[in-house]
Amino acid sequence: MPSNLKLSRRTERVTGSLIRDILQLTQKPGVISFAGGLPAEQSMPALAFDALADGHRQYGPSEGEPSLRESIAARLGALGIDADAAQVLVTSGSQQGIDLVGKLFVDEGSTVVLEAPTYLATIQALKVYGAEFHGLPLTADGIDPDALRHAIMERRPAFAYLIPTFQNPSGACYGTEVRREVARVLDETGVPLVEDDPYRDVAFEACERTPICAYLKRTPWIYLGSFSKITAPGLRIGYLASSPVLFPWLVRLKQASDLHTNRIGQAWLAHFLESAEFDTHLERLTGLYRERRDTMQESLQRHFGGLAHWQAPAGGLFFWVRLLHERDTLALLQTALKHDVAFMPGDPFFPGAEHRYPALRLNFSHSDPTRIEQGIAVLGQLMQTGEPETHSGFAPPTCSSLAAG
Amino acid sequence: MPSNLKLSRRTERVTGSLIRDILQLTQKPGVISFAGGLPAEQSMPALAFDALADGHRQYGPSEGEPSLRESIAARLGALGIDADAAQVLVTSGSQQGIDLVGKLFVDEGSTVVLEAPTYLATIQALKVYGAEFHGLPLTADGIDPDALRHAIMERRPAFAYLIPTFQNPSGACYGTEVRREVARVLDETGVPLVEDDPYRDVAFEACERTPICAYLKRTPWIYLGSFSKITAPGLRIGYLASSPVLFPWLVRLKQASDLHTNRIGQAWLAHFLESAEFDTHLERLTGLYRERRDTMQESLQRHFGGLAHWQAPAGGLFFWVRLLHERDTLALLQTALKHDVAFMPGDPFFPGAEHRYPALRLNFSHSDPTRIEQGIAVLGQLMQTGEPETHSGFAPPTCSSLAAG
Repeated sequence: MPSNLKLSRRTERVTGSLIRDILQLTQKPGVISFAGGLPAEQSMPALAFDALADGHRQYGPSEGEPSLRESIAARLGALGIDADAAQVLVTSGSQQGIDLVGKLFVDEGSTVVLEAPTYLATIQALKVYGAEFHGLPLTADGIDPDALRHAIMERRPAFAYLIPTFQNPSGACYGTEVRREVARVLDETGVPLVEDDPYRDVAFEACERTPICAYLKRTPWIYLGSFSKITAPGLRIGYLASSPVLFPWLVRLKQASDLHTNRIGQAWLAHFLESAEFDTHLERLTGLYRERRDTMQESLQRHFGGLAHWQAPAGGLFFWVRLLHERDTLALLQTALKHDVAFMPGDPFFPGAEHRYPALRLNFSHSDPTRIEQGIAVLGQLMQTGEPETHSGFAPPTCSSLAAG
Repeated sequence: MPSNLKLSRRTERVTGSLIRDILQLTQKPGVISFAGGLPAEQSMPALAFDALADGHRQYGPSEGEPSLRESIAARLGALGIDADAAQVLVTSGSQQGIDLVGKLFVDEGSTVVLEAPTYLATIQALKVYGAEFHGLPLTADGIDPDALRHAIMERRPAFAYLIPTFQNPSGACYGTEVRREVARVLDETGVPLVEDDPYRDVAFEACERTPICAYLKRTPWIYLGSFSKITAPGLRIGYLASSPVLFPWLVRLKQASDLHTNRIGQAWLAHFLESAEFDTHLERLTGLYRERRDTMQESLQRHFGGLAHWQAPAGGLFFWVRLLHERDTLALLQTALKHDVAFMPGDPFFPGAEHRYPALRLNFSHSDPTRIEQGIAVLGQLMQTGEPETHSGFAPPTCSSLAAG
């Protein structure tokens, strides 16, 4: 780098996305990838834009298309969230919602309370703005509300970031009492809640899914939603809703970021959400993923017995496999890639060193049942035997490039 | 706002977009708006996505679709910019490019050297990151390279932001010698150049349009391009190219911002740029806008004689009308809105108080010739007579809401 080139201090905190680095490695044909959170191609609805396209060529409103905002507000209302369309902001994917949250709340040194483990790309996006993290350990039932209260008293965080439903990566789904208690703690302390809820519609069993935002009475909140897991992520359409006190700030930050989200995708989505087709589509999609989850569960039982603990998730796209013994999961990934199998090592999902343990995140939505069984068998064998013979000419990534995430 | 709610210091610098606030006011049917930079609906190509759509539903690369990046790199090569497809990043509109530039370069208190006047939304987007500005006065031939050198020595800026071709708002187009000299100053001082070039294809007369980036030999650069003015802004597809030293940072910041830009729009655009149709389309579009420019020129001559100086622009979408006498242009706008005519007051285009003078920015791309003549006649009359009688029930915005930009 030229010696007189001054980049912002922010860039010292920029890391690549481990997920995307690994996704690039898994582009190689034949790789069985459990790494990303990619929906299955065959789960996606057929797109038909042309009747809508020419009416949506001009610049549009920063807040989003009115029809889509109305439709989202109606869905939120049904979940118990008191938000009308005027509190809904369409974003360029849910990732943009996380970026806007960082812009809104985070100064250098601001603390964010979140789950440990939590969504990797949230850690990365908030770090860019200088966030520091206080991680709360997770059980299958969620975080401990008392630990949340304690963390708030001790750290005075800018906000709490939680994924209460089919948590990424753990698959945890907070119970009713935990949701209520967490809401109570946040209301009492006045700490804003950012609730990330991208998986809620990928549900395989009846379970508690009421957003914590629906239980809040006082404290400001932002609810982040996604269509990427249930329609077509290439459209880059997500949304957020927020309490009125935060909304005008978020709109202005959105304007400064990209003026507005692409309109064709919004128009199609507004149409699709209101169509009779949507429910059928969702049923088909969850059926497909339920089958893949069940396959992965059986494969894990066959090949990971005695090596790890896990729980079949009631929804979402991932198994979180907690290893019984200390293990370098990055090294394991390197070996696995030589055998054309990819997964996400658990480490980068932990916001700090505390509460960390060795784990793998395994996606089951993107591979068909045959490949799920093949891939899990390979991983199980590698776990059992350590380093098997290398037979592939595929150069694995160096540790440093993988550690960039 | 709840007393214990802590937002980032950044939010103290967030301002709304005056342009968008005014655009909202101009939604009222019947308003003749010279305010925004909206392309004419009839200038836009018909969109046909459906053949491409289902192949672009999945997540895509953060850098953009390979076919579009190749096509952009070829176009940049033809302009003399030495960049291959690996240096091209597709953005969610050119506005996102400006936001990424802010993320990359700007800390609280960083100085940016730019033209005075300059693009309003750039001032707003960079301010969010804490930028301070040093404005350089503009002539029809561009900035004074010696003034640039002096500003660099005095302020040690993080980068220079320039719009050398059909500058917004002034319409200035830098001459060849100025372009070369500016490049020399930047190369000698090592200050990075951010060159914003959204209007280059909207050219009515042969004139110098070689990007300054093409003249640079050493200093790092970022070139920002847009398709919004020549295709359909609702798609939200722009791009940047940069020197290799900056590119990996920009990709990572893009990943953290929204993962990638919507793929359907990219796929369509890649197809359209390579089609035989594209050149015909551009010729039709520039023909349409040339006619409107000529109409506005004649209308201004008829109604603004003795009131202002202006030069018919050789390209772009705006007249920049410099008033001969001090005038409160915000108050003028309020009066004009009562008469259903909108324009952009000049003040917000100045990054600071220095070099400021009273001016109006008038867009000619969005109104047909009849309405251009009607609207300019109204403005000319208001300029001549001061406050004419109010006859409309339309409530004008308050000064404070307009001043929010």
